[in-house]
Amino acid sequence: MNAEIIAVGSELLTPYRIDTNSLYLTEQLNLLGVEVIFKSVVGDDLRQLVRAAQHAFLRSDIVVFSGGLGPTEDDLTREAVAKALGLELERDGEILAALEQRFAARKWKMAANNAKQADVVSGAIILSNPNGTAPGQWLTGAFDGRERIIILLPGPPHELKALFEGECRERLRATLPPAVIATRVLKVAMLGESQVDARVSPIYKRYPDVQTTILAAPGEIQLHFKTRAETSEAAQQRVDEVAGAVEDELDDLVFSRNGEPLEQIVGYYLQMRNATVSVAESCTGGLLAERITSISGSSRYFVGGAVVYSNELKTELAGVPAAMIEKHGAVSPEVAAALAEGIRYRCESTFGIGITGVAGPTGGSPEKPVGLVFHSVASNSGTEVAERQFPGDRKLIRRFATQMALDMVRRKLM
Amino acid sequence: MNAEIIAVGSELLTPYRIDTNSLYLTEQLNLLGVEVIFKSVVGDDLRQLVRAAQHAFLRSDIVVFSGGLGPTEDDLTREAVAKALGLELERDGEILAALEQRFAARKWKMAANNAKQADVVSGAIILSNPNGTAPGQWLTGAFDGRERIIILLPGPPHELKALFEGECRERLRATLPPAVIATRVLKVAMLGESQVDARVSPIYKRYPDVQTTILAAPGEIQLHFKTRAETSEAAQQRVDEVAGAVEDELDDLVFSRNGEPLEQIVGYYLQMRNATVSVAESCTGGLLAERITSISGSSRYFVGGAVVYSNELKTELAGVPAAMIEKHGAVSPEVAAALAEGIRYRCESTFGIGITGVAGPTGGSPEKPVGLVFHSVASNSGTEVAERQFPGDRKLIRRFATQMALDMVRRKLM
Repeated sequence: MNAEIIAVGSELLTPYRIDTNSLYLTEQLNLLGVEVIFKSVVGDDLRQLVRAAQHAFLRSDIVVFSGGLGPTEDDLTREAVAKALGLELERDGEILAALEQRFAARKWKMAANNAKQADVVSGAIILSNPNGTAPGQWLTGAFDGRERIIILLPGPPHELKALFEGECRERLRATLPPAVIATRVLKVAMLGESQVDARVSPIYKRYPDVQTTILAAPGEIQLHFKTRAETSEAAQQRVDEVAGAVEDELDDLVFSRNGEPLEQIVGYYLQMRNATVSVAESCTGGLLAERITSISGSSRYFVGGAVVYSNELKTELAGVPAAMIEKHGAVSPEVAAALAEGIRYRCESTFGIGITGVAGPTGGSPEKPVGLVFHSVASNSGTEVAERQFPGDRKLIRRFATQMALDMVRRKLM
Repeated sequence: MNAEIIAVGSELLTPYRIDTNSLYLTEQLNLLGVEVIFKSVVGDDLRQLVRAAQHAFLRSDIVVFSGGLGPTEDDLTREAVAKALGLELERDGEILAALEQRFAARKWKMAANNAKQADVVSGAIILSNPNGTAPGQWLTGAFDGRERIIILLPGPPHELKALFEGECRERLRATLPPAVIATRVLKVAMLGESQVDARVSPIYKRYPDVQTTILAAPGEIQLHFKTRAETSEAAQQRVDEVAGAVEDELDDLVFSRNGEPLEQIVGYYLQMRNATVSVAESCTGGLLAERITSISGSSRYFVGGAVVYSNELKTELAGVPAAMIEKHGAVSPEVAAALAEGIRYRCESTFGIGITGVAGPTGGSPEKPVGLVFHSVASNSGTEVAERQFPGDRKLIRRFATQMALDMVRRKLM
């Protein structure tokens, strides 16, 4: 079975907005064993919408529309689907009554155009929308001699998700042949895509039934495994098998076995060891602290830190001797180590992290070019310093540096 | 004139990747006076690609393909476009020689499949790719009796952008009727979308020739104005007129007149006043420092700061009296003010910012619920504290809080 997704709305054809509902819908459909073969974005234009719908009904077993179900003149999905199928729209009394009630409960007057949301394509099942006024619709049957499932969902993501989960998932599962999909995500730190692929492609190629996707993010390679089987156990066993073989090969380079971000994995380890961490950041300017504290519950292991942009503050808040900065420069292995040791002492934490470098685009020199970063982790077993030369712009360099520092702590905790 | 964009690649039909090239292309096409009326994503499947291309050639004056120009079996855009037009592919000797040279220069052996990148749709102009191996292609003429421009671009964003700017923009400008587009972006801080719209819609409705788009981000409303005229002066004058009228209405609620982010505007003002700033953050965990330092050159006005997650560190790094925390709690107007004053004193900066609150999802109480944040700005004219109750999740609350704090500093600097 295959599917396609049509996002409706002229705002999605501007430079400012992108359709992200289709990522969620693709994930959900994939888990039901359905591949998405086509996606499109159509504006609020009846002629274009009817045409896009007709093409879709010819091409795909399942067609999911998102958006265009509201009360305004521009909301044309219902009309377009009816027209493309040669069916009528019928105003549903129950929906209309519910709409009127909803407005009355808020003591608002219902404008006449709202009644449009009660229009149902003849024969459609109504999908109730717990988070909004416009219900979804579900049509199934033979169109032009082909068995099709057509689903109309509202555009706002929280409405679309609630409606899909509440009304569509089980209906689809009941209709589709039983096929169970299992997935696994491994994440690898501080290694290039080609290096990872060279080591693991001989492994995943032995599993042609498992779909392997390699994605690169700054300082992180993600390996996505997906397979389909008759039972959930069989599918899970298969992805676990390939993931296990890849883990054996990459060993402790794999930091995440279920897709968690690095800051969360470091948090797990710190809690497990009853340890705490503090940070002294120069070039990353608070990004490391921000990543660590983006995890709910991080106050259990994150004490705090200092963003020491000026040299004076490196001395004042992290206790780096002014003479050391004078002698080696603020971007040096010595200062990185002193930042880590100083903030650890100051915060009385198990680990202290220090980062200093040149994030650019200005401030580089032949000896200390843009992208040069020193990372340090101090603990009671001593102080480690790592030097790296990162590629990319300011944002990327800062991201790389925090990834490296987090990975150094992870390795110390393992 | 209208256009459509077809992104080619099976990875864009997974839950992990989204086509963002189309946002860039839409912006560029809009500036040339071309509206985008349809976007689609097609996998690496010849039959589907040919069909999508045929639909596009029927529908749109300009059709831009991105992706599918590489050397692998999956790269099918060239074949699909040729097939859809009933044309042949011809191997171009010059491109082939350049490819061979490129490999030779790196002392690599060129695998046979690379030659495919020298295949050109009969009659196409070759668009040279400064950042990659696969050139783009430009076809123009009457297809099926309709005048069409068909552009094939590589998928990697830095290749696509360089190629569009170097080879397509002027070619399109020369082909299209002269229409000049002018745009303006105003940004408004800490006001709701409906509040902004209620105040400005009577204004922009007086300018039906200017397209106004209102977009909401956390703690920020963006007003995009766009218009088309015969000359660039006339177009600019028109958007400046509506933007000026909106500014008169919203006055100092408008923080950005050309789309700059709030952290950059605050940076401008600080430099203009020869002032500096430091921060002491609790619930925002480094996000405020991170936003300030994301701007290149921020070391001129950002001294540094402290992320004081634990109560002890609020005392140790920002000088908040332990007795005050004991009496009022860490989340209190008193502690916010003490953080701002303490870090200002410590860092010897013109302004000190303090933030303390409950980012959630845990840690809330009936008196101090999730989303409650106190923001403070200290300067030699005294200390200001603002309390807000923000909606949303941890990420959103943290974003709102930093936006509010930055806006408080902006207002003090105006």
